[in-house]
Amino acid sequence: MVLWLTGLSGSGKSTIAEEFVKRNENFVLLDGDVLRNGLCKDLGFSDEDRVENLRRIREVCKLFVKEGKNVITAFISPFEEDRQLAKKEIPNCYVINVECPLEVCEQRDVKGLYKKVRAGEIPQFTGISSPFENSKADLILNTDVSNLERCVNGLIIFCKGKK
Amino acid sequence: MVLWLTGLSGSGKSTIAEEFVKRNENFVLLDGDVLRNGLCKDLGFSDEDRVENLRRIREVCKLFVKEGKNVITAFISPFEEDRQLAKKEIPNCYVINVECPLEVCEQRDVKGLYKKVRAGEIPQFTGISSPFENSKADLILNTDVSNLERCVNGLIIFCKGKK
Repeated sequence: MVLWLTGLSGSGKSTIAEEFVKRNENFVLLDGDVLRNGLCKDLGFSDEDRVENLRRIREVCKLFVKEGKNVITAFISPFEEDRQLAKKEIPNCYVINVECPLEVCEQRDVKGLYKKVRAGEIPQFTGISSPFENSKADLILNTDVSNLERCVNGLIIFCKGKK
Repeated sequence: MVLWLTGLSGSGKSTIAEEFVKRNENFVLLDGDVLRNGLCKDLGFSDEDRVENLRRIREVCKLFVKEGKNVITAFISPFEEDRQLAKKEIPNCYVINVECPLEVCEQRDVKGLYKKVRAGEIPQFTGISSPFENSKADLILNTDVSNLERCVNGLIIFCKGKK
């Protein structure tokens, strides 16, 4: 099974995914920030590079699935085509929308990225200067109204229903 | 533990690695031909692309090692710098030379590649029109004098000695 989390920067994807894997040992976490510093560190944030980034992640998902592992991914994945490709290419892949209004993400600004964007230091930032396309999700987690515990529980219940 | 097999096309890397993982369940096989059709299918066979190919493989190795898996890789990996980078970047990574004279590899020609090379259909082919640099190995398997059984046993004994 692959849980493909999608959402704005600061929406809570990594936080949810990290807590989820703590409670589900047979899940591997593939995190955007981590992969951007490793496998995908040659890529930037142009539309083209974002597409290639997610193509590689799908391929790594397949390698883990082949080894009997489940995967949870935490990437912005702004384009619907890439999300649907994940569902098409990977059996039992589910798209999970991690939803939070842009204003709330910007208020949180855990990594200080929004501040940099507003200062003009980061071009092509999703939600501001780069698009985030609507996502047809299998599950929606609203992190502005639900706390971490509730979101993770929601994800666990969702997984049980899919077994 | 990562076993990094290196050798000419047709030297027997995949055959050895496939047999090895059958007997060692906690090993994941990353095979050149398979990865070239997936994660690295955007890459060609220029020196630059070969380097990028192996950079990605090292990163995937790290992801599996992080999940408690051992890995055996079967890539030509013609450049010594890339092999040594694997040893440097990945703890307990060992370079295994799968050695076989070029003439014997060409006689075997399991995939019909050498025939195509001689017909001028494949440029940049390792050992003929692209270099294979000498490899400083942790273990050498000579597939022209040792059969599959003996090579795989040699690899298993090597692993036991490293535990």
